[in-house]
Amino acid sequence: MPDTHAPGVTPIALDAMGGDHAPDEIVAGAVQAVREHGIPVVLVGAARPLQDALSLHGATAEIPIIRAEEALAMDEGALASLRRPRSSIAVACHLVRRGDACAVVSAGSTAGVVATGKLRLRGQPGVLRPAIAVVLPTLPTPTILLDAGANAEVKPEVLVQFAHLGAAYAEAALEIDRPRIGLLTIGSEPEKGNKLVKRAHELLSATPGLDFAGNIEGHDLLTGAVNVIVTDGFTGNVALKTMEGSVRYAFAELREVIKESRTARLGGLLQRKQLRELHRRLDPDVHGGAVLLGLNGTVVIAHGASRAKGVSAACVLAATLARQGVVARIGEHLAASHRPHRLW
Amino acid sequence: MPDTHAPGVTPIALDAMGGDHAPDEIVAGAVQAVREHGIPVVLVGAARPLQDALSLHGATAEIPIIRAEEALAMDEGALASLRRPRSSIAVACHLVRRGDACAVVSAGSTAGVVATGKLRLRGQPGVLRPAIAVVLPTLPTPTILLDAGANAEVKPEVLVQFAHLGAAYAEAALEIDRPRIGLLTIGSEPEKGNKLVKRAHELLSATPGLDFAGNIEGHDLLTGAVNVIVTDGFTGNVALKTMEGSVRYAFAELREVIKESRTARLGGLLQRKQLRELHRRLDPDVHGGAVLLGLNGTVVIAHGASRAKGVSAACVLAATLARQGVVARIGEHLAASHRPHRLW
Repeated sequence: MPDTHAPGVTPIALDAMGGDHAPDEIVAGAVQAVREHGIPVVLVGAARPLQDALSLHGATAEIPIIRAEEALAMDEGALASLRRPRSSIAVACHLVRRGDACAVVSAGSTAGVVATGKLRLRGQPGVLRPAIAVVLPTLPTPTILLDAGANAEVKPEVLVQFAHLGAAYAEAALEIDRPRIGLLTIGSEPEKGNKLVKRAHELLSATPGLDFAGNIEGHDLLTGAVNVIVTDGFTGNVALKTMEGSVRYAFAELREVIKESRTARLGGLLQRKQLRELHRRLDPDVHGGAVLLGLNGTVVIAHGASRAKGVSAACVLAATLARQGVVARIGEHLAASHRPHRLW
Repeated sequence: MPDTHAPGVTPIALDAMGGDHAPDEIVAGAVQAVREHGIPVVLVGAARPLQDALSLHGATAEIPIIRAEEALAMDEGALASLRRPRSSIAVACHLVRRGDACAVVSAGSTAGVVATGKLRLRGQPGVLRPAIAVVLPTLPTPTILLDAGANAEVKPEVLVQFAHLGAAYAEAALEIDRPRIGLLTIGSEPEKGNKLVKRAHELLSATPGLDFAGNIEGHDLLTGAVNVIVTDGFTGNVALKTMEGSVRYAFAELREVIKESRTARLGGLLQRKQLRELHRRLDPDVHGGAVLLGLNGTVVIAHGASRAKGVSAACVLAATLARQGVVARIGEHLAASHRPHRLW
């Protein structure tokens, strides 16, 4: 199981060709991860530009390059992963598969990374559908939301599995002991929602090994009411993007207010530092990105627009998940939940 | 067709017993609607408390009371509407049905108002499912989102009808000539989404009389990219509540920032007026509330927590929709969209 390799020994395989600012910012992120966080990294991609970028940082000796002469473009979707078996993301997955890397990090197109990960790493035994998990910046502890978009259409049983995947993530990355699970729907009573969530509510209530806290509404996504929020990939993706858009909207409106009046502008200047800090906390670049859970290996998908800071945060997250054995934990969760069914 | 009655003559039937602050704030809202906006209102509810509340405002002679001795509690759902044929909301609907009122306004429980409205006013001819439409505070013109929660499960054909309902609303209330319609999903390409939206995309593209602008993502809900956003009631409700929660979260975080430092606090004081104005624009109380579209009569559902200002804004919205004949416009839209099918 590659994800149990101790980091510090087994490196992160970083797809150097994925992302809007690849390869320069990816390489800069790798250098940060190595120098500031002590996380070993190998860069996967076209040898020449990577050598050039590394030598700018004087890091040629610190970070090895694994060659992959092809790359998935940011606008290439799931099918491209079949057509490009030697793409940088495919090679990075291969390194994990062979045990030469403990996790994959990519800022490439989400659809491409998901398709390649599923194809090259395969689903863990017993996992019906891998899911994308994101971390919401709630206080005091962050909240994990999944699926954020890998599966537009799922069955109720799959939502139960997502709860296990999310619980394993919360345990591994956030060190939460018995994560509380919420089901995203449109009312607090069990009978509220569409057929999918009504059935999922029944199943989650009857699943051993899960601390199911019941329904969660859109209002509650950012209140930290639960540790893990489970939903289908369609609703999850709409909710996540709505959140991002709404926070951006609120800040833009605020900027307008500050611009409009002289006294307010003065106030704005005084607040600048505080606002910068707040913005930093809401910034996806700081959180490390989305995680593709349920594969035979850890895959972290950094934001496509990631700069060095975001890439290095993604490497930190990937190293934490690998060190904490999230893949093995998912296996244990699923095994525990199946035991009662095997009795008869 | 009751909604073509000229306001100034035919009053709004205001459910005086629905809402967290009923009846006092409802009565105060009625007084505002009459005195500040020249909108005639009849109050529907328990005679004694309404008389008392009206006399506090010296408005006994201005606003008639229609007696309804029962009321739906805020926690009563859809079934209660069947058990209480003489509830204030049922009587208000009855007034519209008889042509004695041009529209219903209620701050009662959404489920109760929707169920009673459907039962007492019935769906318009040709309408498959009535839907709840809300107005999002985009600039320069607001955006209409529907369905915000009346139908957790719909067929693709129903989403096409929602586009017509929303277009009629945009024309009637926002005076938009040829409203641009967007379909809420998880990617901009036509093939992105679940089965429901993929099929709805095909149908919307082929529907005459609609200016279909394609897919809209969660990011775009508050950018004013289109005039009407169509979605199922499950996704719409999650998105709406997520938006409200996210804006609330952003403001709460901001308040924390302001409290944390003395210089920032000074800045906050200077901005107080501007922030108040911004908050007002985002406040559902100002927008008048949600509209239940597709019934034989106009029904406006004010926020359950509405105070006088919100109630009077809801009366203004209801009067505008009635004056502009939104019910008739919906009929025309549906008839126009059906014409090509009748050719063979």
